[in-house]
Amino acid sequence: MSKLEAGMEASVRKKEISVPKSMKAWVLDNPGELRLTEKLVPKLGPAEVLVRVDAVAICATDVEVLTKGLPAMIEGGAPFNKNFTPGHEYMGTIVKVGTGVDEWGIGDRVAVEVHAGCGRCERCRMGMYTSCLNYGLNYGEKNKGHRANGFTTDGGFAEYAVNHINTLVHVPDHMTDEEATLIVTAGTAMYGLDALGGLIAGESLVVTGPGPIGLMAVAIGKALGAQPVILTGTRDARLNLGMRLGADHAINVRKEDPVGAVKRITLGRGVHYVMECSGAPHALNEAMDMVNRGGRICLAAFPAEPVLVDLAKLTHNNIYVFGIRGEGRSATHRAAALMAQRRFEAKLMHTHTFALEELPTAFRYFRERIEDAIKVVIKVHG
Amino acid sequence: MSKLEAGMEASVRKKEISVPKSMKAWVLDNPGELRLTEKLVPKLGPAEVLVRVDAVAICATDVEVLTKGLPAMIEGGAPFNKNFTPGHEYMGTIVKVGTGVDEWGIGDRVAVEVHAGCGRCERCRMGMYTSCLNYGLNYGEKNKGHRANGFTTDGGFAEYAVNHINTLVHVPDHMTDEEATLIVTAGTAMYGLDALGGLIAGESLVVTGPGPIGLMAVAIGKALGAQPVILTGTRDARLNLGMRLGADHAINVRKEDPVGAVKRITLGRGVHYVMECSGAPHALNEAMDMVNRGGRICLAAFPAEPVLVDLAKLTHNNIYVFGIRGEGRSATHRAAALMAQRRFEAKLMHTHTFALEELPTAFRYFRERIEDAIKVVIKVHG
Amino acid sequence: MSKLEAGMEASVRKKEISVPKSMKAWVLDNPGELRLTEKLVPKLGPAEVLVRVDAVAICATDVEVLTKGLPAMIEGGAPFNKNFTPGHEYMGTIVKVGTGVDEWGIGDRVAVEVHAGCGRCERCRMGMYTSCLNYGLNYGEKNKGHRANGFTTDGGFAEYAVNHINTLVHVPDHMTDEEATLIVTAGTAMYGLDALGGLIAGESLVVTGPGPIGLMAVAIGKALGAQPVILTGTRDARLNLGMRLGADHAINVRKEDPVGAVKRITLGRGVHYVMECSGAPHALNEAMDMVNRGGRICLAAFPAEPVLVDLAKLTHNNIYVFGIRGEGRSATHRAAALMAQRRFEAKLMHTHTFALEELPTAFRYFRERIEDAIKVVIKVHG
Amino acid sequence: MSKLEAGMEASVRKKEISVPKSMKAWVLDNPGELRLTEKLVPKLGPAEVLVRVDAVAICATDVEVLTKGLPAMIEGGAPFNKNFTPGHEYMGTIVKVGTGVDEWGIGDRVAVEVHAGCGRCERCRMGMYTSCLNYGLNYGEKNKGHRANGFTTDGGFAEYAVNHINTLVHVPDHMTDEEATLIVTAGTAMYGLDALGGLIAGESLVVTGPGPIGLMAVAIGKALGAQPVILTGTRDARLNLGMRLGADHAINVRKEDPVGAVKRITLGRGVHYVMECSGAPHALNEAMDMVNRGGRICLAAFPAEPVLVDLAKLTHNNIYVFGIRGEGRSATHRAAALMAQRRFEAKLMHTHTFALEELPTAFRYFRERIEDAIKVVIKVHG
Repeated sequence: MSKLEAGMEASVRKKEISVPKSMKAWVLDNPGELRLTEKLVPKLGPAEVLVRVDAVAICATDVEVLTKGLPAMIEGGAPFNKNFTPGHEYMGTIVKVGTGVDEWGIGDRVAVEVHAGCGRCERCRMGMYTSCLNYGLNYGEKNKGHRANGFTTDGGFAEYAVNHINTLVHVPDHMTDEEATLIVTAGTAMYGLDALGGLIAGESLVVTGPGPIGLMAVAIGKALGAQPVILTGTRDARLNLGMRLGADHAINVRKEDPVGAVKRITLGRGVHYVMECSGAPHALNEAMDMVNRGGRICLAAFPAEPVLVDLAKLTHNNIYVFGIRGEGRSATHRAAALMAQRRFEAKLMHTHTFALEELPTAFRYFRERIEDAIKVVIKVHG
Repeated sequence: MSKLEAGMEASVRKKEISVPKSMKAWVLDNPGELRLTEKLVPKLGPAEVLVRVDAVAICATDVEVLTKGLPAMIEGGAPFNKNFTPGHEYMGTIVKVGTGVDEWGIGDRVAVEVHAGCGRCERCRMGMYTSCLNYGLNYGEKNKGHRANGFTTDGGFAEYAVNHINTLVHVPDHMTDEEATLIVTAGTAMYGLDALGGLIAGESLVVTGPGPIGLMAVAIGKALGAQPVILTGTRDARLNLGMRLGADHAINVRKEDPVGAVKRITLGRGVHYVMECSGAPHALNEAMDMVNRGGRICLAAFPAEPVLVDLAKLTHNNIYVFGIRGEGRSATHRAAALMAQRRFEAKLMHTHTFALEELPTAFRYFRERIEDAIKVVIKVHG
Repeated sequence: MSKLEAGMEASVRKKEISVPKSMKAWVLDNPGELRLTEKLVPKLGPAEVLVRVDAVAICATDVEVLTKGLPAMIEGGAPFNKNFTPGHEYMGTIVKVGTGVDEWGIGDRVAVEVHAGCGRCERCRMGMYTSCLNYGLNYGEKNKGHRANGFTTDGGFAEYAVNHINTLVHVPDHMTDEEATLIVTAGTAMYGLDALGGLIAGESLVVTGPGPIGLMAVAIGKALGAQPVILTGTRDARLNLGMRLGADHAINVRKEDPVGAVKRITLGRGVHYVMECSGAPHALNEAMDMVNRGGRICLAAFPAEPVLVDLAKLTHNNIYVFGIRGEGRSATHRAAALMAQRRFEAKLMHTHTFALEELPTAFRYFRERIEDAIKVVIKVHG
Repeated sequence: MSKLEAGMEASVRKKEISVPKSMKAWVLDNPGELRLTEKLVPKLGPAEVLVRVDAVAICATDVEVLTKGLPAMIEGGAPFNKNFTPGHEYMGTIVKVGTGVDEWGIGDRVAVEVHAGCGRCERCRMGMYTSCLNYGLNYGEKNKGHRANGFTTDGGFAEYAVNHINTLVHVPDHMTDEEATLIVTAGTAMYGLDALGGLIAGESLVVTGPGPIGLMAVAIGKALGAQPVILTGTRDARLNLGMRLGADHAINVRKEDPVGAVKRITLGRGVHYVMECSGAPHALNEAMDMVNRGGRICLAAFPAEPVLVDLAKLTHNNIYVFGIRGEGRSATHRAAALMAQRRFEAKLMHTHTFALEELPTAFRYFRERIEDAIKVVIKVHG
């Protein structure tokens, strides 16, 4: 969609943008050890572009990476890289294109999906690139070409980042850098709604958990015509924000039993879909009680530990549960399109901005929810 | 969805509404012979309701029925009924409910789908009730329960009409009777978009033919996030209306080759989807040139005679073509939801209103497009 | 498919079959209180037929009904019926047809699906009749027409049973009564494979639990071309039977860790699909370790109590879990077709036969697995 | 599936196979000018393997290429290559693997799909690699990596051929080279059945045209459980072969009207699916009369010229038409699995064998159907 999207607004591209040899970048040494350093600006391979990072947001999984170390360490897929730069919710400007790339040009503003599949495993061949069977294999002899920005390959807490063209999404002129960092979050929510059924207009949706993905699920669910859209959570400020983003009802689970509330609102029927975005231990059990027979549940979050689940309800009520990883099936393109069409005010979710040097402070705001922080954005350039 | 939809706005239902024994109704004798008469108000079966027709719109297929006779005559399914009342785009108020009906109540405002499937053939069992294999069998010994309002069973050019509850769609208080008659047209467009893929946000759509279904396809396609939405047609007034309903581009095929225009707008790429709503002889061939490899075409209209088609393009480019009949897969509910959410100004399509007695004049306005008539509505009650 | 299926073998139907006024039938009083009695042969409604029960098999859910009482008691849907006859895996001969039934005729041999949907709820309208929202409502003022043989309406531990035509499946002449009782079990397995993806040829499948549904899942999975098909269980006799029905590998979990075995057989890759038919507490966790990223799991069984589940695996690996109820989406027709085509020796699963009077003994054989009982069949007529 | 498939039979791979520097290869100069020459054995890129061609079959599209020239000439995608080697239905032995390839090893026997998508266009990203939007772009500055063996990149009428690993399908030890050349034909038929619905067990299928793809559609349709499977054609020998491959009925259209025959066999109901493999001018119109309401038609062949089509039938009967190109969605893997499981005797379709030098004679046998030639195979090695 790149040039087509770009072409739809008469965008003027710069012919050339100068790129320095080295750049500032945060790197993660051992878990918890984040350090600002100077790195060489990375080299491009074929089908890749160099993105000048203009802005990058902080995501809960960044906190995971920061505190527990790289998935590469955990999953054992890729070799641990002592010079690794995390950060995956970034956007920026293309400053260089690799061999054979004419789909995108210098000066294009882009947001990026996290995953570029290997393109050669069974899942990638079928279009499920976020389920790539060669996850993490982007190094050494076993280089299969899979990339996950900020997880297995260097990410966006830096001045520049390499990206495979499959991850690029056009950012329209009228969208701010800060708002554009939200595209990948929106893409995850969109992917969940796609897994649930896609055409949800006129159907009922509960979103449990008003974190960024949950709020985006509310906004996109409503933009696609779901009704009613019911948001559950524990904090009124977040719930109110959910209402501004399109929720028809917001339930504070500290004040009302969420299953009861859903039954009340739906006149006892339950809903068609639940997007679980809280990771709460009881969330799946409650979701099974919220959907009606034949309903569907998407798990976009999960509890840290195994939890008790009453599986009998899944079979008794013919319920399907869809675990999703990231933002597959080009969902970021769909999400970006809705944002470009200003279907909802995504920027309401952006609460704080810091400079690249201030990343540790930004993380603190995000983790401790200082001043009700939701999306904390690092403005790197511009 | 009935009570749930209704419950979402605190609607106050009347407990009882008096119903006369007889009513005014138009009946079709031989083709072309439409006559206003007095009929008994019809009796209810189980799972049926009596709808007081408040408004009914004229559709191109009504003209077919009027001039060529009933499908029942043509297809030979049902016995020809000399006392037959056509009309299928109607809405009204429930004034009586059949045995066992508690899904709907007296006073509920409803629009109606055309088809109620038999519920017992293979297609109905799989949810494809508009492809019911017992089409037309609602009479005598072979009564399988299929109903198609105004085609095989009495329709809405009358004061009252019987409807199976499966055809009912809730009409919110804020929607006028006139606008509500457009729900079934919107449902047909929605069904086409569902057949094409459902989740079309961020994908490109051409609608060929700015008749009522085409205009609705534009409005719904845009509401669901398609981009760009390109409308082609021959009349500027209709094309302008399409722009107001959500089209990003309108192409007058008398001034520009539509295939060339689509290629120009999409930078040579073609679009993902074409909704063919014109019935023009070259429409399918042009559509095959408009979509890119792997694209999809929905036929919601068709030429009267067989036409030359270059089938090689379908296989060379892996193109799928979806013929649709009516408004299947609960598409009217989805369409009504979008209209209830005021996603587009459907009422722009309503151009003229007449009284029940003026039906022949209304038909003349519709057929001869007098004063640019689009949707001509008969206001029956209220 | 009825007459078509029947027509494919030149079957000769009897014109008339005499039906007595009363019949022998087992009824369930309080849980555990099964009693043989004399009942009136039931009356037919429209779209129904009277089936002379020729044979009926015992299913694990019959044991549930017997020991815990009717779902109607448990779920509160239908009024408890003191004269209730359980039994749902039956087949027989049509001896009478209701008004308007010409799809089937007297003398037709049929097996029956359990569920006939109401045909008027949202799920039924979309073809998901086993998720009917009016489950259990077949009585009194709230009669919506839903039927579940032997669960909410009288079943097959009797000489005659009423069936809606939607539940009927043709039984070919060459198939014995005993084998035909297995069609509904095969239908459940087929529905699970349909939910998992439908076209599984060339893909890998684990079936956990060699009960009747699991064994059928092996047989049908192999018939549809899955490879390898791996069966896990605790009893060698059952596993051996699974091999005869089409499994490529059988793993006795008492001798080898099933996850390790699956990894060994698949060279570390895991499988595409798991059909969970054991209801074991760890089954879902193990299934999540057996499938590869992007894999799918069907739950056709479930543990009696909530169990600890590591939900993180569902999101990390983009795994979908499909709870299924019964034998939806016309799966019994597909299963019956494969059995009619003799794709596998279903009759290997039939181990014992008893007369109607011997039902308690039959139950005992089934529950206590006396003489390795698998499918215990009651031969009622013929 | 490569190693897994291979691992399922304890295959012993040779560690190294010597490869000469040059090889014999047929090249196409101008249309009609096929010439045997000596070429350098081609070089490998990453993710590619070198296949020693053991056998290659002749397909109708090879005749198209031979007589009309390369698609590259016609479609203008790739630069015309004067040294081009056609041939796409080949199989052989891997003799060399490119950088990073550990999915396959030297000595592996493989058949090959025609298409390797670019992996970077919208269609490839969604798994529709046979609808790659960069078709033909495998050269020069615009090299996007798309390959279509024997159409846009050198094919198999030679001693060696390069293949992207995405095109490789495992050939089991027990399958002859000749039979393995039929895998790609079977893959095309399988792709068509996948497009039509995938799970066709118990549903009815007409295959029109008993050419190789049609015969394979019969064999695979039956293997997947379709019933009845009806084959139509003009030659009794082919029809008889269809019966041996699994057809339940064969209709010689010179002796009986095929629409009437289908109606007769299906007791007037028509079938669920038609696979059109004849390319006859009236085939689509007849197919529309063969399927019932809601039925589906796959076009795997097409008439050379535009033909008159009665499009009204598509909308009246809610019919979907699926044009397919090649063998997408990993259909060759599924087809190969069924062949490896010996579900049908594919080798019955192999009628003649020639040496590489005899290619022109082989073409003559194929085109003129000498001695009832169906699949004419060139044995290149071994």
